[in-house]
Amino acid sequence: MNFLDDRYMLNNEVAEKLFFEHAKDMPIYDFHNHLNPKEIYEDRNFDDISKIWLNEGNYGDHYKWRLMRACGVEEEKITGNASGFEKFKAYSETLPKVIGNPVYTFSHMELKRYFGIDESLTPDNCEKVYERCNELLKTKEFSVRNLLRKMNVKTLCTTDDPIDDLKWHKLIKEDGFEIRVLPSYRPDKAFNIDKEGYKEYLKQLSDVSSVEITDVATLVKALEKRLDYFVEMGCAGSDHAVDGNIYEEADEAAVTAIMKKALNGETLTTKEVRQYKGYLYVQMGERYYKRNVVMQLHIGAMRNNSTRSFRILGADTGYDSIGSGDYLGQLQKVLDQLDLNECLPKTILYSLSANDNDALITLMQCFQKPGPPGHMQYGSAWWFNDHKTGIEKQLNDLADNGVLSTFVGMLTDSRSFLSFSRHEYFRRILCNKLGTYVENGDYPYDLETLGKIVEDISYNNALHYFG
Amino acid sequence: MNFLDDRYMLNNEVAEKLFFEHAKDMPIYDFHNHLNPKEIYEDRNFDDISKIWLNEGNYGDHYKWRLMRACGVEEEKITGNASGFEKFKAYSETLPKVIGNPVYTFSHMELKRYFGIDESLTPDNCEKVYERCNELLKTKEFSVRNLLRKMNVKTLCTTDDPIDDLKWHKLIKEDGFEIRVLPSYRPDKAFNIDKEGYKEYLKQLSDVSSVEITDVATLVKALEKRLDYFVEMGCAGSDHAVDGNIYEEADEAAVTAIMKKALNGETLTTKEVRQYKGYLYVQMGERYYKRNVVMQLHIGAMRNNSTRSFRILGADTGYDSIGSGDYLGQLQKVLDQLDLNECLPKTILYSLSANDNDALITLMQCFQKPGPPGHMQYGSAWWFNDHKTGIEKQLNDLADNGVLSTFVGMLTDSRSFLSFSRHEYFRRILCNKLGTYVENGDYPYDLETLGKIVEDISYNNALHYFG
Amino acid sequence: MNFLDDRYMLNNEVAEKLFFEHAKDMPIYDFHNHLNPKEIYEDRNFDDISKIWLNEGNYGDHYKWRLMRACGVEEEKITGNASGFEKFKAYSETLPKVIGNPVYTFSHMELKRYFGIDESLTPDNCEKVYERCNELLKTKEFSVRNLLRKMNVKTLCTTDDPIDDLKWHKLIKEDGFEIRVLPSYRPDKAFNIDKEGYKEYLKQLSDVSSVEITDVATLVKALEKRLDYFVEMGCAGSDHAVDGNIYEEADEAAVTAIMKKALNGETLTTKEVRQYKGYLYVQMGERYYKRNVVMQLHIGAMRNNSTRSFRILGADTGYDSIGSGDYLGQLQKVLDQLDLNECLPKTILYSLSANDNDALITLMQCFQKPGPPGHMQYGSAWWFNDHKTGIEKQLNDLADNGVLSTFVGMLTDSRSFLSFSRHEYFRRILCNKLGTYVENGDYPYDLETLGKIVEDISYNNALHYFG
Repeated sequence: MNFLDDRYMLNNEVAEKLFFEHAKDMPIYDFHNHLNPKEIYEDRNFDDISKIWLNEGNYGDHYKWRLMRACGVEEEKITGNASGFEKFKAYSETLPKVIGNPVYTFSHMELKRYFGIDESLTPDNCEKVYERCNELLKTKEFSVRNLLRKMNVKTLCTTDDPIDDLKWHKLIKEDGFEIRVLPSYRPDKAFNIDKEGYKEYLKQLSDVSSVEITDVATLVKALEKRLDYFVEMGCAGSDHAVDGNIYEEADEAAVTAIMKKALNGETLTTKEVRQYKGYLYVQMGERYYKRNVVMQLHIGAMRNNSTRSFRILGADTGYDSIGSGDYLGQLQKVLDQLDLNECLPKTILYSLSANDNDALITLMQCFQKPGPPGHMQYGSAWWFNDHKTGIEKQLNDLADNGVLSTFVGMLTDSRSFLSFSRHEYFRRILCNKLGTYVENGDYPYDLETLGKIVEDISYNNALHYFG
Repeated sequence: MNFLDDRYMLNNEVAEKLFFEHAKDMPIYDFHNHLNPKEIYEDRNFDDISKIWLNEGNYGDHYKWRLMRACGVEEEKITGNASGFEKFKAYSETLPKVIGNPVYTFSHMELKRYFGIDESLTPDNCEKVYERCNELLKTKEFSVRNLLRKMNVKTLCTTDDPIDDLKWHKLIKEDGFEIRVLPSYRPDKAFNIDKEGYKEYLKQLSDVSSVEITDVATLVKALEKRLDYFVEMGCAGSDHAVDGNIYEEADEAAVTAIMKKALNGETLTTKEVRQYKGYLYVQMGERYYKRNVVMQLHIGAMRNNSTRSFRILGADTGYDSIGSGDYLGQLQKVLDQLDLNECLPKTILYSLSANDNDALITLMQCFQKPGPPGHMQYGSAWWFNDHKTGIEKQLNDLADNGVLSTFVGMLTDSRSFLSFSRHEYFRRILCNKLGTYVENGDYPYDLETLGKIVEDISYNNALHYFG
Repeated sequence: MNFLDDRYMLNNEVAEKLFFEHAKDMPIYDFHNHLNPKEIYEDRNFDDISKIWLNEGNYGDHYKWRLMRACGVEEEKITGNASGFEKFKAYSETLPKVIGNPVYTFSHMELKRYFGIDESLTPDNCEKVYERCNELLKTKEFSVRNLLRKMNVKTLCTTDDPIDDLKWHKLIKEDGFEIRVLPSYRPDKAFNIDKEGYKEYLKQLSDVSSVEITDVATLVKALEKRLDYFVEMGCAGSDHAVDGNIYEEADEAAVTAIMKKALNGETLTTKEVRQYKGYLYVQMGERYYKRNVVMQLHIGAMRNNSTRSFRILGADTGYDSIGSGDYLGQLQKVLDQLDLNECLPKTILYSLSANDNDALITLMQCFQKPGPPGHMQYGSAWWFNDHKTGIEKQLNDLADNGVLSTFVGMLTDSRSFLSFSRHEYFRRILCNKLGTYVENGDYPYDLETLGKIVEDISYNNALHYFG
């Protein structure tokens, strides 16, 4: 097969039929990403592919940075002050070396789908490619909104702090942009009682919400007020970065005491951190439930592993990794508590360790509910798992122990407006998986049902789930 | 390939040859299941496929219930009071959605092999299928004993509490039924010092065994008396549900003190629970060894995760999941202790987490013994792993780090008399695995040896192992 | 495909081209093994295949022993006093049973590549094969040095204790042997403060280094002196057996206090063991860095699981297994500390649990460095993972989250002079992997780049890395 052939990852006839007739033209509901709504409102044109593809300061595609670092490139050419072309050149030198890495595929799919460039990028053609891309980027067709239209995006959900005023979301809406740009509610800073900046954050939250935060009840009240504002602005999902501390039983008074301890600068025990967080997960879960807001739990990242680099570049700059830890029992308790209270919201679990797929899928299956199918979801292969191996495994594990056809499907989790071809990547793998079931005699040759499953996972399920 | 074709999962010529010439007609030794011996003795005819396939009250196939719940079906139609047909219809609506799930395959293999129904079950044909099945179920050919005969079952081992009087096993034997129906010894309730009902259970055990239980020595004596009775009744295997608390060193006096604490209603520490259980594993292991009883350890389930549902439906109703935890060191100590005492019985390890296959297989290989091959066994893919992915992985991991040809093979672990086609499912995967070794040049084209391996894993190994 | 066909594991045209044109004839840099330098210096001829293949006393190939034990062979015929032929015969009886096990393949590749024997070994031909092998072994062509030459070995690194005088390495060098035989520095005994023999070892180290060890500073000084001697003798790599205790913060004074406690025979807490080891890892890591010595960390073995057998046979006799444990956070701290100090040496991480591949690869990617590519390496599938499944997984995981083309590749980790065909085994899998990328449209059909990647991973990368 030719490199990135039309039949790429479609290894049988049914797979091809499903992709071309049922997946390819479905719209996109990208329910979790890190796009900047300001750039959407302003309909920015990037003038340099290095900016939209690699970095602007220490913001950008840290997947690519990691690979460049592993190939020995100087930081100057990654997040530093080198010129756009120097960075692009360094990236073109890196790329042929990362054979088999998903970034190799993603980069070339983006060159092909967005820029019509079929060649593989190498140091030999990097100048030509750089110029061609920059030329195109300056045209109206390549404004941020047109890039989204080109990929048939219908809805996208950004990631936002409760204290955010959502000014840009508001302006986008008022502007009548036909693609829905919705905020997601990510209250990590209010949960991170064990991290620096907690006290300052509570102060800000207090100010923004006009709720004086004196105990956990008022904290929850402040968060709830902001949640209401987010929901008013179209928010359909919340999002939590979950580490190894999730739950330990505690009553309100105990949690307030823990809060005060933290605000006094005292160090908390692991137990106390778990009590505080557990209490908040249950309180906020209940509030999501009452507003029909989806709760997304992203579990298991180990962040900022290089203190040296963190001091220079800050968070989210490519120094994170897959963690481990025995959090299952704690997570079960949060879900169980919400289930007991009959307040368990629609929930999507994501794990950064693919080892935990089966444990989490079987756990979530204990909390399904009558009504629309798929109340509990196991999310798409996340971050370091966002590649053929990881996506195939997620689909396979979900099919083995859950219900594949109710799955809400793919999201980009991306910081770049050029990432939407990952939905195509995902859909090819999905169609191949389903086609292979038929090919292997695991499922009847029933194109109508299969086609519907593909369309549902590609778009409809997410649309109905987030509503 | 057509859906459930004759060549299903047989992807090369050697695989086909092995399956049709060496696997298909081998009898079945089902050494672990949850069948009801009373129904065998009475040679029950089920009058409704919903009862034998889905549920009778809260007893039945909780694999199917979980899928129905995940598709949003009301509990009324799962374990509730809806009619047999309503339940069957709800199941037929669920089935097409669970593409790729083993239950999809198992259900259709059962319709095909037991009822001769080739169509895939959908809401469209569910009424017709329901009636046809029920018609057949009422015939003599579909009595419980005839269902077992049809599948060429020679021996089956049920799962029984030490206090069970084994009345039905006795009656079956006296009745001269040609299929051996043997009890297995499962003393979980005596081990579960940390669960509700411990005190009451010890009272019952005391009564049944006529041993007054006043300390751990008398507890072991009571268990031993019951074990002797079980062995007399043909018991060849014991069975333990093993959680994260397995072993910590302790002497007899310390363990008796822990028992007394528990009987007084005091809460035990994790360490004490481990000491108590560890002591019992070693004591009972020694007793199994002396009676040539196989010790089966089923490790790593997280049970009754939804407290709300547990209160309504009780245990074993579809609310369990795959656990995690670092139990390897503790398990090593139990095996090491028995090995030191030269009393390590034949042992089968099962893990609910396929992640642990390699660790457990390499651990068990440290405790093999001169004499009949395969003293230590790594059991067939268990519960949530009982699908193509899991079975292939178990066989592959066992081949990579153990000795595949000595493997005791498949068991149904089932509550239904219609589950025996799972042995066919397993054998197809096995034959395909062996055929693929030949196809790939990993093993010579030596059909005699290969055929013998297939026959051994299908039946002979289990027969010799359980004796 | 025929058994061990020329195209073995090469499933497409590109794979074949890559193997035969770029891999097959590349030399070998075997940077980690357990060969005996004395036998190299003396250019020993083995007179019995049982000795070079199976055992001499309790030294030898414990992979094979484990399989024999699992097949019920008496210890007498494994490590005992049975004759060479009796052992060989017992092994020939075991072999056909271990279908799918890598040892099956390795054994036959060795018979084929070293002895020209094409038949598969069975009890039927074992006498003939035994005699033929022994005949050949006695010829000059089969002396130890000629065996290495035959396989095109250019460099090999043995595993040595800091107190070793490296007499044989010295003699080999002086002898002008064209294959470089380099020592590796493995200071486990100085790290194992929690194991028997620590005190005695420190005494020996003191004597050999002429440094009186009174605290941790003098301990490090003694180790450093030996490291300097090793480096003088050509040492390019160090090696550590890492268990679950890796790091906890502590200053020099605290560590010295812990040392004194241990030397007084007091039992240390887990925390103290971690503090001691963590301190040493950081100290030694810095010293490796300054001498450009590679640090190899072999993580996660659970050793000597059968106390009974350990008492009879000692360590490294086939009673080890894959461990588990949540060591990631500790390992991160060691790497982070060295990175902060700007003293992180070139490091190769190996994990005995393939479950940890992704976590370790993503962690190591946080510590890459400008300069030569691949400062941090994730090592080849180790020990119980050294088979097709494990090697494919290691390559795949490395490609998915790291940079495959900079990988330093294969090593034998072997105790036998007949193991070097494992490099061929590895290269076939590698070529097949790369060929499959092309076949699947994941990478362009660019034989020049692909060929270079194959040559680099086969030999060049290791050569440049170890220098």
